[in-house]
Amino acid sequence: LDYQHVQVPFEITLWIMLASLAKIGFHLYNKLPSVVPESCLLIFVGLIMGGIIYGFNDRSPPVMDSDIFFLYLLPPIVLDAGYFMPSRPFFENIGTILLYAVVGTIWNVFGIGFSLYGICQVKSFRLQDVSLLHNLLFGSLIAAVDPVAVLAVFEEIHVNEKLHILVFGESLLNDAVTVVLYKLFRSFCEMPTIKSVDVFAGIGKFFVVGLGGVLVGLSFGFTAAFTTRFTKDIRVIEPLFVFLYSYLSYLTAEMFHLSGIVAIISCAMGMKRYVEANISLKSHTTVKYFMKMWSSVSDTLIFIFLGVSTIGENHEWNWPYICFTVIFCLVWRALGVLVLTFFVNRFHVNTITSKDQFIIAYGGLRGAICFSLVFLLPDFHRKKLFIAATTVVILFTVFVQGMTIRPLVDLLAVKRKRESAPTVGEQIHIRFLDHLLAGIEDISGHWGQYYWKDKLEYFNSKYLQKILLREYDQPKSSIVLLYEKLERKHAMELAQAGQLGHGLAHPSFLCSAFLCSSSDRTVIRDQKLEDTPNPDVLDNMQEILARNLYRIRRTGPAYNRHTLPGDSEPTERAKEILILRHKSL
Amino acid sequence: LDYQHVQVPFEITLWIMLASLAKIGFHLYNKLPSVVPESCLLIFVGLIMGGIIYGFNDRSPPVMDSDIFFLYLLPPIVLDAGYFMPSRPFFENIGTILLYAVVGTIWNVFGIGFSLYGICQVKSFRLQDVSLLHNLLFGSLIAAVDPVAVLAVFEEIHVNEKLHILVFGESLLNDAVTVVLYKLFRSFCEMPTIKSVDVFAGIGKFFVVGLGGVLVGLSFGFTAAFTTRFTKDIRVIEPLFVFLYSYLSYLTAEMFHLSGIVAIISCAMGMKRYVEANISLKSHTTVKYFMKMWSSVSDTLIFIFLGVSTIGENHEWNWPYICFTVIFCLVWRALGVLVLTFFVNRFHVNTITSKDQFIIAYGGLRGAICFSLVFLLPDFHRKKLFIAATTVVILFTVFVQGMTIRPLVDLLAVKRKRESAPTVGEQIHIRFLDHLLAGIEDISGHWGQYYWKDKLEYFNSKYLQKILLREYDQPKSSIVLLYEKLERKHAMELAQAGQLGHGLAHPSFLCSAFLCSSSDRTVIRDQKLEDTPNPDVLDNMQEILARNLYRIRRTGPAYNRHTLPGDSEPTERAKEILILRHKSL
Repeated sequence: LDYQHVQVPFEITLWIMLASLAKIGFHLYNKLPSVVPESCLLIFVGLIMGGIIYGFNDRSPPVMDSDIFFLYLLPPIVLDAGYFMPSRPFFENIGTILLYAVVGTIWNVFGIGFSLYGICQVKSFRLQDVSLLHNLLFGSLIAAVDPVAVLAVFEEIHVNEKLHILVFGESLLNDAVTVVLYKLFRSFCEMPTIKSVDVFAGIGKFFVVGLGGVLVGLSFGFTAAFTTRFTKDIRVIEPLFVFLYSYLSYLTAEMFHLSGIVAIISCAMGMKRYVEANISLKSHTTVKYFMKMWSSVSDTLIFIFLGVSTIGENHEWNWPYICFTVIFCLVWRALGVLVLTFFVNRFHVNTITSKDQFIIAYGGLRGAICFSLVFLLPDFHRKKLFIAATTVVILFTVFVQGMTIRPLVDLLAVKRKRESAPTVGEQIHIRFLDHLLAGIEDISGHWGQYYWKDKLEYFNSKYLQKILLREYDQPKSSIVLLYEKLERKHAMELAQAGQLGHGLAHPSFLCSAFLCSSSDRTVIRDQKLEDTPNPDVLDNMQEILARNLYRIRRTGPAYNRHTLPGDSEPTERAKEILILRHKSL
Repeated sequence: LDYQHVQVPFEITLWIMLASLAKIGFHLYNKLPSVVPESCLLIFVGLIMGGIIYGFNDRSPPVMDSDIFFLYLLPPIVLDAGYFMPSRPFFENIGTILLYAVVGTIWNVFGIGFSLYGICQVKSFRLQDVSLLHNLLFGSLIAAVDPVAVLAVFEEIHVNEKLHILVFGESLLNDAVTVVLYKLFRSFCEMPTIKSVDVFAGIGKFFVVGLGGVLVGLSFGFTAAFTTRFTKDIRVIEPLFVFLYSYLSYLTAEMFHLSGIVAIISCAMGMKRYVEANISLKSHTTVKYFMKMWSSVSDTLIFIFLGVSTIGENHEWNWPYICFTVIFCLVWRALGVLVLTFFVNRFHVNTITSKDQFIIAYGGLRGAICFSLVFLLPDFHRKKLFIAATTVVILFTVFVQGMTIRPLVDLLAVKRKRESAPTVGEQIHIRFLDHLLAGIEDISGHWGQYYWKDKLEYFNSKYLQKILLREYDQPKSSIVLLYEKLERKHAMELAQAGQLGHGLAHPSFLCSAFLCSSSDRTVIRDQKLEDTPNPDVLDNMQEILARNLYRIRRTGPAYNRHTLPGDSEPTERAKEILILRHKSL
């Protein structure tokens, strides 16, 4: 027997196997996952495992290594989150999300830090040796909402898309703030005196860490898209590039002390569109499937390890400190959400209801990131107290909040996610409204999100697509792509049912349905036309859509040495269909 | 900058990236891969990389670690090979393959070992300090044909299926022999005296190592199949089990000093059939795609590392020893193939032609396995000479033989692989002949391969499928599965061409074509019938096929306390259609 030789891969494989088998086990009993969130069950499995290890070895079981967590377990989950991020609701609510992620997190950090410092001043609690800086440091690691925990719970309760993206987006983007504050306070702890310059440098760092992450991510994302232009002859390694480049973006960002989470999300969101167009259908299935698989395993491992690491002798128990930590975490988050939402609602028509606010506040789950950060703290005499408090907060949020959030959502009748995908007719309407609003914004001189979206789309089709796409000559609108996808799915279903000979939803019919805008997928499929096929109709339809939609005037810079204001070229102006029609009338 | 923190994953990712980009680069110039095998190009890239590292660092570049090779790089390639192994030609030629792999390898080891010892006796060569045991040890590592190198070259030259499986099967199965001989001689080198008991123990070990590997592999394979029965609710982690269980089988075998390669191949071949039936179509695409991707990257990395490791100061040059090693490798292999094939041809109708024999002898490429084994040798004063000789043999076989084998195949007009997949008609005929031959073997009392195949099939459908398949109530014949696959592919093609409304190849028509046995896929697709679909016809057709094919008599044990010989139950006998009809006549 030569166990030494194979130990490392063998144990890794066994842990992954345990995680996968645990997942299967839970799903065998259908009733269990509907009552208890999977994350709780996994932590429970971890606690049992930890207990067994502790019982046999008579010493604390191995603690989840922070390096393993940040380098190997976290990236797959964040990559998956970024790649499958619904970009429309995300960008529609980006302002609100950033407000929650940046201002909200800072609010929580200082709120929790200062109030815990207040608690430490009470003599009978015997906590007077915990300084303000240490409390703020603890606040910075306990304040951040954890994307892994949030995903695990929110994926199961199916709240409406906006609510989901608000909590989830916040949990992802607060990484930049957490990283900065945590490192800032940690370095302050080690400095003899703190100058005001350092504080301002810290504030400047927010932007460097966040925007730097975005830049690193986007550059790797575009490189990935560019690389997949050349993989036509070796389809089989296409999926690899998606994983390699996103992982590199994460590692590079971490290397330069930027936000790795922000980097990998930008990378995934940046490359997705182009990579999907370049790689083959099977490669894309593999990418999607493997990403889901990987993140699901990572997620499982993290919760099991959380459970295992809880068992042991790392804890120093102090009732008041731990209880007040839990209370302050809840109170400050609730207050922060209330105050911030008050301001958000003043500037938006589509307000956040008080029910939604409650769920946002209540959904602020803490998880493995806090746990890893607390173990990364430099050694000082109260570290074990912080570890105990962090563990309790995590277990409280995951177990109590995680298990009660579903009944609460039911009780409050929070608006749920719509079950069905949007119909073709709805998609047409949404797109039409986008163009209409862009036109209105352009005419009224208000540069809102639709204006910028249109500008970005223009930049994309004019420059990016030419560089990043292999087959640029056939740019397809999202509707045509959707149509193709539906047809493909339909064909597969028919082939599986063995009814390929039936009359089918027909392209030409579908197009006319598109144009009259009252179509619905079910209606289409019920109709059976025996027409001859005419794929040209599709192109026609696409052209009509493209020609008749409003285009924003490509305004030049306000001041130009060589042209007078308003002296735009006539050919440019010819494209502005609406204005042109106006004139002809 | 914090490079230390991310170093390990960063450098691994960069190496994989380099490998993938190198692969893309070669395929950009279409002419290059058709002249030079990819393996040569990759070694060349490795040589350049090694030169650069050597130039900058002024010391030998890192040598490919044997542990990394055996634990991480080799398993994906072997798994891929085992999973996609064409089982029919493999089992048809299993006797010949085993003869080459076991007897042939032993022949080569002792041939090369003893003749090199003869060379060492020549005084002017200054090699008298190399003992016979060391020469045999060197022979045991240099004799084994390398599956990675063979795959890399033979995948590109497309020789006929039988020739391919002979060389490739040998390269896989000789692992058991190599492991045993290598470890035997290495332990002999360290022993003061060798008893004859040890030699016999060594011979006994062959069977333990080989059959032990098969047992470990099959048990993990069946466990994997059994596990995928329960993954219906979490499709997303299905592919994981295929990888986890096969890797565990490899590691477990290695742990017990059994043949890991044999184990992982048995595991893959054992599980494939059941896993495919249990997991979803998308999971299966992911499994196949990821396996190919992984093995392709491993393969690339191995050749690049081979090149990198060649550069450096590990070599001791001795012209006669190195030249004679190359010559003996070639001569003994050629002799071995000639002698063994002489015996094989005496017992087979379908003989191995002399052209095929030449290609088998010439295709005995050495690769990374030899290279890793030579670095694993215990330190002794001539180790550097062995390293140099091994490197030269590998480079000689990969470059000279690898680059000339394609022109030689063309020149000799070796029978090529047929380009198209077998038509439905051919498949029917092959299956019909199988049953016919099983019947003939049964009547004539000769228990040949068809008899055993039928027995195995019976055991499979009676016991294994019930335990390992989720939906046992719908056992589908291979023809029906093939038909479904064709239909699905056809539907996809039609959906992509936007012609889903056309008249299509129709199930009922296809069935009638099946039955008249003269059908061809192209014929079917040209016909356009406007019938109504009737999936029942498929079932009918399957039933007719199943009812009219000969079944071997299920003979009971020769002696039974409770029954007389020949006293089989009438219901059992009712199944023996042919015999029944005979009686009725």
